[in-house]
Amino acid sequence: MPRDLPASSHPSSPSEADTGRLENGRVTFGSGSGNTEHADTGSSPILPPDERVGFAVMGLGRLSVGQILPAFMESRTACPVALISGRKEKALTVAREYGIPSSSIFTYDEIHRLADRPDIQAVYVATPNAMHVDQVEALAAAGKHILCEKPMSNTAQEAERMIAACKQAGVKLMIAYRCHFEPFNRAVIKLVRSGELGKPKLVEAVNTQTETDASHWRLKAPVAGGGALPDIGLYCLNGTRNLLGEEPVELFARMVSPADDPRFASVDETFSFMMRFPSGVIANCATSYGASITRKLSIRLEKGSIELENAFAYQGHRLRISRENEGHPAVTEWHIPPANQFTLEIDHFAQCILKDETPLTSGEEGLRDQKLMEALYCSAREDRMIRLSET
Amino acid sequence: MPRDLPASSHPSSPSEADTGRLENGRVTFGSGSGNTEHADTGSSPILPPDERVGFAVMGLGRLSVGQILPAFMESRTACPVALISGRKEKALTVAREYGIPSSSIFTYDEIHRLADRPDIQAVYVATPNAMHVDQVEALAAAGKHILCEKPMSNTAQEAERMIAACKQAGVKLMIAYRCHFEPFNRAVIKLVRSGELGKPKLVEAVNTQTETDASHWRLKAPVAGGGALPDIGLYCLNGTRNLLGEEPVELFARMVSPADDPRFASVDETFSFMMRFPSGVIANCATSYGASITRKLSIRLEKGSIELENAFAYQGHRLRISRENEGHPAVTEWHIPPANQFTLEIDHFAQCILKDETPLTSGEEGLRDQKLMEALYCSAREDRMIRLSET
Amino acid sequence: MPRDLPASSHPSSPSEADTGRLENGRVTFGSGSGNTEHADTGSSPILPPDERVGFAVMGLGRLSVGQILPAFMESRTACPVALISGRKEKALTVAREYGIPSSSIFTYDEIHRLADRPDIQAVYVATPNAMHVDQVEALAAAGKHILCEKPMSNTAQEAERMIAACKQAGVKLMIAYRCHFEPFNRAVIKLVRSGELGKPKLVEAVNTQTETDASHWRLKAPVAGGGALPDIGLYCLNGTRNLLGEEPVELFARMVSPADDPRFASVDETFSFMMRFPSGVIANCATSYGASITRKLSIRLEKGSIELENAFAYQGHRLRISRENEGHPAVTEWHIPPANQFTLEIDHFAQCILKDETPLTSGEEGLRDQKLMEALYCSAREDRMIRLSET
Amino acid sequence: MPRDLPASSHPSSPSEADTGRLENGRVTFGSGSGNTEHADTGSSPILPPDERVGFAVMGLGRLSVGQILPAFMESRTACPVALISGRKEKALTVAREYGIPSSSIFTYDEIHRLADRPDIQAVYVATPNAMHVDQVEALAAAGKHILCEKPMSNTAQEAERMIAACKQAGVKLMIAYRCHFEPFNRAVIKLVRSGELGKPKLVEAVNTQTETDASHWRLKAPVAGGGALPDIGLYCLNGTRNLLGEEPVELFARMVSPADDPRFASVDETFSFMMRFPSGVIANCATSYGASITRKLSIRLEKGSIELENAFAYQGHRLRISRENEGHPAVTEWHIPPANQFTLEIDHFAQCILKDETPLTSGEEGLRDQKLMEALYCSAREDRMIRLSET
Repeated sequence: MPRDLPASSHPSSPSEADTGRLENGRVTFGSGSGNTEHADTGSSPILPPDERVGFAVMGLGRLSVGQILPAFMESRTACPVALISGRKEKALTVAREYGIPSSSIFTYDEIHRLADRPDIQAVYVATPNAMHVDQVEALAAAGKHILCEKPMSNTAQEAERMIAACKQAGVKLMIAYRCHFEPFNRAVIKLVRSGELGKPKLVEAVNTQTETDASHWRLKAPVAGGGALPDIGLYCLNGTRNLLGEEPVELFARMVSPADDPRFASVDETFSFMMRFPSGVIANCATSYGASITRKLSIRLEKGSIELENAFAYQGHRLRISRENEGHPAVTEWHIPPANQFTLEIDHFAQCILKDETPLTSGEEGLRDQKLMEALYCSAREDRMIRLSET
Repeated sequence: MPRDLPASSHPSSPSEADTGRLENGRVTFGSGSGNTEHADTGSSPILPPDERVGFAVMGLGRLSVGQILPAFMESRTACPVALISGRKEKALTVAREYGIPSSSIFTYDEIHRLADRPDIQAVYVATPNAMHVDQVEALAAAGKHILCEKPMSNTAQEAERMIAACKQAGVKLMIAYRCHFEPFNRAVIKLVRSGELGKPKLVEAVNTQTETDASHWRLKAPVAGGGALPDIGLYCLNGTRNLLGEEPVELFARMVSPADDPRFASVDETFSFMMRFPSGVIANCATSYGASITRKLSIRLEKGSIELENAFAYQGHRLRISRENEGHPAVTEWHIPPANQFTLEIDHFAQCILKDETPLTSGEEGLRDQKLMEALYCSAREDRMIRLSET
Repeated sequence: MPRDLPASSHPSSPSEADTGRLENGRVTFGSGSGNTEHADTGSSPILPPDERVGFAVMGLGRLSVGQILPAFMESRTACPVALISGRKEKALTVAREYGIPSSSIFTYDEIHRLADRPDIQAVYVATPNAMHVDQVEALAAAGKHILCEKPMSNTAQEAERMIAACKQAGVKLMIAYRCHFEPFNRAVIKLVRSGELGKPKLVEAVNTQTETDASHWRLKAPVAGGGALPDIGLYCLNGTRNLLGEEPVELFARMVSPADDPRFASVDETFSFMMRFPSGVIANCATSYGASITRKLSIRLEKGSIELENAFAYQGHRLRISRENEGHPAVTEWHIPPANQFTLEIDHFAQCILKDETPLTSGEEGLRDQKLMEALYCSAREDRMIRLSET
Repeated sequence: MPRDLPASSHPSSPSEADTGRLENGRVTFGSGSGNTEHADTGSSPILPPDERVGFAVMGLGRLSVGQILPAFMESRTACPVALISGRKEKALTVAREYGIPSSSIFTYDEIHRLADRPDIQAVYVATPNAMHVDQVEALAAAGKHILCEKPMSNTAQEAERMIAACKQAGVKLMIAYRCHFEPFNRAVIKLVRSGELGKPKLVEAVNTQTETDASHWRLKAPVAGGGALPDIGLYCLNGTRNLLGEEPVELFARMVSPADDPRFASVDETFSFMMRFPSGVIANCATSYGASITRKLSIRLEKGSIELENAFAYQGHRLRISRENEGHPAVTEWHIPPANQFTLEIDHFAQCILKDETPLTSGEEGLRDQKLMEALYCSAREDRMIRLSET
């Protein structure tokens, strides 16, 4: 399917549908062909390499190597220019693959040195939860904008310290709630808010996976701050709040850890919670490190029902809407072009830096979740419903 | 989900599942976590930017701008270092986005100048079909390896000229049959060949889309060489041959173009053909520029049935296998991590160049399809079955 | 979910939604409740048992025992009052289950005796294909209306004899094309004819199953009249004609029977055919006794695509419509209440008898298919396209 | 597809696959054909009409007319021989359709007269909930076995009276929990209990529908005993208990009724509850009269996930199992032949009567649910978790 039609050989009106036209410094194509399968790249401009926002990636675990760094390759507004890691040899290997010079590799103890590197405008923090607070304070002091992985911290108090440090230093803080940028989640929120299906009545959010490695830091409370709840249950909590656009007024939670399983000696395996919202919506959320992968968001509304499979996953989203279609009960699946949500998240932060805007998923958004998770653990421990102030 | 656990702060046995280990010069991770959702990147090594195979992209139509150039961004063995286009201003705009210097932009008349550019090892040809033969001859003369879009040419004779030119110049020629590299298509072929579902009996392949722009070169026979058949029907033809691993012995075809539709004055709108293979399998293929998008491959076997939706699309593949499951008639959908098939195709060619190997989808493979398409048009014109020699 | 609200205990305005109202001698309910899941029973009146049309069921094979007789239990316009079978003991067992007296059991040689039984108004003929012609002549002579299983006969000539015999005797003849009455097939036809999705361009119809019993009469040409084509391929042929409402003008067919398989010594295992219709639609049909069950009808239209899974099955229909939905490419599945298509077919014939109307699927409809199947076998044998007159 | 092969014309070994054989007084067929699509009729014998268990149907609301009476037509062990209704004219109309003589129509005040009718062995009670207790006492006194619709009663105390009355009279009492007999629900329970997918961790059960008729008795607390919970939420409660085979030890519930909606002035619109079971499983259940139809049961286990769509519906069940398949994450849908669950339920009770056995869904089973519903309403009212004794 080659497409270019050079003026020399076909001078008489080549079709714009395929040769395209120049518009605001970009090449665009009409919609004449039926073959437009790919995602809208959104409003992000495509910047020449030398105009992109330079990021350091901090922490070279599975997430950074498998998702974050490859996501930068798809970005056109940001690029990775430095690495911060505790293991030099690994960092050198990764740096070579991404064309990052060895002079741009730092250890955790060298964060202050970033102050001398104006080419590093932002840092993507992807270290274990317990390390976030100190690291963010150090990065803010070095004048770097910060995109911090979720959960933001292990306590609400730590989250408040992080926000204060960034505020004082005048740098931006964004929490990496990638689902806010993911196209299927966005389509669901847009549909619910449109009112087309009437008022929502019930929400179900489930996020489960099996953790088999008992030695992983995610199963150690001091490092992880909790078990399934802060790691993957957080998607249910934040996802429901983001969907409804309101804050819960009542909470109730149950926590289960098999007594005889060493993996869950210090953290929750399974955590389930119910929230009531001011509008009357009830959300049932459940998360577990002991059940195979399910990552689902469902909304029951007056005139229809929405199910988003793999809602909180990296890929594989399926959006099904149950409602009447031409007089028949029907289920409609929308085919939305998938997009790399890490790239979209990074591009959003890059844009905020370039335009001096506040990120959609600010530190305050993260703080709200930290406070709610503390209330959920309290409910589970004390066997009682918690009533929150309706502010 | 941050993952790195630096030795300094947590010296006691960090889990390899997340910190990873160095292996053959790459960082790898164990399978401890349940969260391994992404595609295997295959056997392609990740090369430092300065060791990658340099490509020129020729023709800047919708395919190049929308698919091929972005696919290079995901490649770790190849990179775009030059552009060849008939429209200078468009080329400059695109070049800037990809960090290509203006000195690396060429017009179609300047192909011979590539001979002086050893950094350009290969050219991805994505120009209208009718231009391929002359361009490939010129590129071969300039000593460049060639990855040429399908259909390879407008006639079998042109295809033979292209093969001869590359052979004489000692350069590699690959036809861009991207589905050969796409993971779902590969899984289907592997499953059929495993014999698990018994022998195949019937194949159905459908590839349709609507072409609404009557001025598009794809609807002009002299430029396109035909209508729906060479452009999208070719996926049915090549896909069936690749699936079965054998060549058809009998063909019959029908061609329909609405008499009153100016779009199809010179080319076929709808083209349907039946092929019988030596094994006894019968394939029913159909393509149309007049029906909304369907891109489907189905195989009916002794013990099961396979349907691959969006088989020939850029994305959105769905693989469903109907066979007994624990005593129940059942349909199983495999979730295979999607991958950019353009990237895989480019990486394959880059590897062939680096290792001096023959591409899977060689010029000879393309020539076979050209000969079959000529036989199909003959059958349609002469209202008769064509018998091919079983060699 | 009990529903009756007796006047005595709740005299003040009981809801009609649940107590219902009397209308034209039937009890009906409003649509107030969201719980109306079941199929409309159509326009068939519910008749008291003693006013129903009395049927004899002829032939007690798997179809009669497993489908036809149970289907009568769901009918409210017809009831089985006699059996005609070659095996007395089996007939007695079945008769006892359905409350049919032994005096109403007949052998094939006793068909003439039915003339004295006015309570038997119609006969459902479910014997092997080769027997239909003589039996239908005998039944017509006895003055009985006839609902005859498909394929109507082994040759077009036999079909013509059957039509003539019924005409002369003044009895009705209906061929049991159950899909004409099945709700999903009807919904598909209605949707295609509505024009909502534009003109159809391509049809695919597939009907396959595995026949493992080499001794079955269906694998013996003299009894069955052919192999997969007349038995199950007929659904593809008749279904396509019924869908499009026009007759094919060109045919081409291929037939394959594995040389070494004793099951297919006298009949076709796999049969594939292409038909072109006056409107320009091309249909690709395929049937096989050697592939696992697939019974699918697909239509590719200008503005959408329709797939009906299990189109020709007794149950399990799934109707998916691909078309744009609120700006998204989408697939919509309609949930249509399933209904017993044998019951609907029987009710249709009972109604035709009661109202003296011509059945939708008359002997003439069956004859048309017999002629086309003869042309298809001719094409397959002679390796050539057959052109039919466009009348 | 006619199937009988009469001995006269084909004396040499007709295939048993189609002619069938006599076995224990029934005609059966081998599995030679690939065309065995229909449900196993289970172990219920087919009884001649005059040996079937005679039922009176009490209450002629939507459920009786639309589901229960038609279900009797598919039964081969039971038949409707009498009607009990508050509206004579309606009863006469229905009776005529089912061939019930007018002498077998009774009013609610005439229940005692059933004592003189030995042909009426059982009564299917389908009247509003509040009427059950007095009616069951009267029916038991008349010596009739009772199949009573759910919810059994409006209070646990009433349920106890019903059980006592039947015990004293020596008649059987069954509660019409149809899902216990429905094939998809049974397959799910069997799969969970097989241990194949490991231990269950989480259950989600949702049953919602919209009630639009504000005058319906189901929206009046004195008649219905509650709102969504006892009517449709009961399926979530009973379904979860039946699935897990254990009783909850902790409960928490929230109830929401829009303040300004006259439909829900006296009953709950939306009711959500969490239960913890001794095994550690947590179940999240939700029901609503204010959301469009969803009737879903999901189970998250160690090695897989099960979703049963339309779990609590009359039809349209879809069973999807997510687990690894040949190395791929996969979703498998089992195609289970649907069956009329009302018929299966009625047949079960008829069998219990014929064999003098205790029904699977006894009065005690119903009583347990009544007690739990009382605890759920208590939790919702008092904003607190209820701990139940683990007996």
